[in-house]
Amino acid sequence: MDDRVRRHAEILVEDCTDVQRGDMVLIRAPKEAEDLVVALYEQLGEVGARPTTKWGSARAARAYNRAMDVGDYETKAHDLAAMEETDVVFLIGGGGNAFETSDVPPEKGQAASRSHGPILEERLRKRWVITQHPTPADAQQAEMSTAAYEDFVYDAVDKDWDAQREFQAQMVEILDEGEDVRVVSGDTTDITMSIAGMEGANDWGDKNMPAGEAFTCPVPDSVEGEVLFDKPLIRQGKEITDAWLEFEGGEVVDFSAAQNEAALESILHTDEGSRRLGELGIGMNRAIDRFTYNMLFDEKMGDTVHLAVGGAIEECVPEGQPFNESATHVDMIVDMSEDSYIEVDGEIVQRDGTFRFEE
Amino acid sequence: MDDRVRRHAEILVEDCTDVQRGDMVLIRAPKEAEDLVVALYEQLGEVGARPTTKWGSARAARAYNRAMDVGDYETKAHDLAAMEETDVVFLIGGGGNAFETSDVPPEKGQAASRSHGPILEERLRKRWVITQHPTPADAQQAEMSTAAYEDFVYDAVDKDWDAQREFQAQMVEILDEGEDVRVVSGDTTDITMSIAGMEGANDWGDKNMPAGEAFTCPVPDSVEGEVLFDKPLIRQGKEITDAWLEFEGGEVVDFSAAQNEAALESILHTDEGSRRLGELGIGMNRAIDRFTYNMLFDEKMGDTVHLAVGGAIEECVPEGQPFNESATHVDMIVDMSEDSYIEVDGEIVQRDGTFRFEE
Repeated sequence: MDDRVRRHAEILVEDCTDVQRGDMVLIRAPKEAEDLVVALYEQLGEVGARPTTKWGSARAARAYNRAMDVGDYETKAHDLAAMEETDVVFLIGGGGNAFETSDVPPEKGQAASRSHGPILEERLRKRWVITQHPTPADAQQAEMSTAAYEDFVYDAVDKDWDAQREFQAQMVEILDEGEDVRVVSGDTTDITMSIAGMEGANDWGDKNMPAGEAFTCPVPDSVEGEVLFDKPLIRQGKEITDAWLEFEGGEVVDFSAAQNEAALESILHTDEGSRRLGELGIGMNRAIDRFTYNMLFDEKMGDTVHLAVGGAIEECVPEGQPFNESATHVDMIVDMSEDSYIEVDGEIVQRDGTFRFEE
Repeated sequence: MDDRVRRHAEILVEDCTDVQRGDMVLIRAPKEAEDLVVALYEQLGEVGARPTTKWGSARAARAYNRAMDVGDYETKAHDLAAMEETDVVFLIGGGGNAFETSDVPPEKGQAASRSHGPILEERLRKRWVITQHPTPADAQQAEMSTAAYEDFVYDAVDKDWDAQREFQAQMVEILDEGEDVRVVSGDTTDITMSIAGMEGANDWGDKNMPAGEAFTCPVPDSVEGEVLFDKPLIRQGKEITDAWLEFEGGEVVDFSAAQNEAALESILHTDEGSRRLGELGIGMNRAIDRFTYNMLFDEKMGDTVHLAVGGAIEECVPEGQPFNESATHVDMIVDMSEDSYIEVDGEIVQRDGTFRFEE
């Protein structure tokens, strides 16, 4: 086994989630990530934790969803019961085919996602981390050789996370103290929102690995303007390109996409909260220097901003502040490398990808 | 996908477990069995059931058990909680390497098995079936080509189960009504036991697929004599050959094996019940015409008897009869094709593999 797989597992168990003796650990992984699962089991045995692994097979999910009646989806009681008894969750990406669920009708993906809501809610109360095992299919998706893609993934993962945390803290402080945000890119994106009363958060590895963003939650009703997400996203096995949203009073009032607009529509129709923003994030991991069609990496890129429709993030919304509830959370990215700026309370904090505190 | 995989899934969902709309279904499968999992998800979607799949990775289990302290094993609370909420369990065999756990110390396998006891107990209260997906590694184990092994597996599985059930009922009746059993093979096996008050059971597909045996439980204290299991078994990644047990007052008082005696010892030392018999079974599936180093098939072979040390089987032990409790249940096989007979209440019911009612 590649030594870097063991190092990856060590970072996940020690740095990201601090697994303790006796912890109930739930891993969800595709079969292509078996090496990382084996390395995790080795670490978890050394710690004396108790792991179980849920097999995420996209082929099985496709077969099931195609065969199901859209009205038959309900929360899986055994999955929910297992999650309730779990202390730590590892969600591992890395598949055999990113488009495996591309021929599932969107309304079924949406029903499945809705029925999963209570399990997601329960999971968010645990220590959890989302990560990625580099597979040939993911490398193909990134238009890279498998070896080069492995280098890319492990460079983004095996960092000095203390130093990265300090670098990000400068942007977190701005979000924490700021009230009004404006994001402008070219003549296609000009969106404003309030973050007054919300808390800035530092993504240093406790939730995502690789980590590397500063983020907060907009006040749900405050979002106004339009945004063109010029980086594509893959959802429900579809590549959605040039997603465009227009907001009034916090709600999406118009939308379009150059490709797979129906998939975008399906996301927005999941529930009431999926038509409002749940997150404003600013990518700051400079080891991620290229777009790879994988949100876990893409949203951390140095000169990007991402907005998510759907559920807000608990750590950013203090008691008494409005919390956007939703069964979904879908990130979408704006390229900020050219002709772009982020303004907080009337001051430019980033221009063309360079932060004020970097100048 | 091979059409026979779909037929296999259909038999499992319809005939073996009669899955209903809304049933919580738990599948445990190795990654090599993905085709069967996909076919099951398709069937389960059509029925409107709710499946989840636990990934059985022998590589991960090996890594975990080697790293664990033997004193640290405890029941996994999340696995137990999931099992409690489950209606139907599919346990799918079919791996990548039958010897994957061969370098795990036996006392750890034993501790893992003991800690799994409450989950096993819970599972036995559900509708469940154990089956097998034919993989290249299993074919290798059986010393067959993969294509020939697939034929072997699907011939054993896709049978007229109503006719088979009637054929087996003749032997079940003998076990049901009989009191004293004697099994003799050559000059190495001569064992007697009481089955008085116990019920005979018909394995027609509700627990194992392929099915094909008549079985009951011995009265725990009644077993006397010695038995040489001349067919090997693989446990904890070890091939145990020529296992020999001597019983007095129902308990194993002496034992040996030509190979891997330590693995046999570890089984017998799991708990008190693992030193007593929990099952007497008589193989009756004539489509299984060769030994393949796989207990699910081997124990159903037409001219074999198997005895299991460990837990008794609920359906065979009426209220008020002594029940052998154990966290384990390990079947071992005696070849009855030559110089052998089974006697029930002084009458020969099988000689050299041929049943009285077949003559």
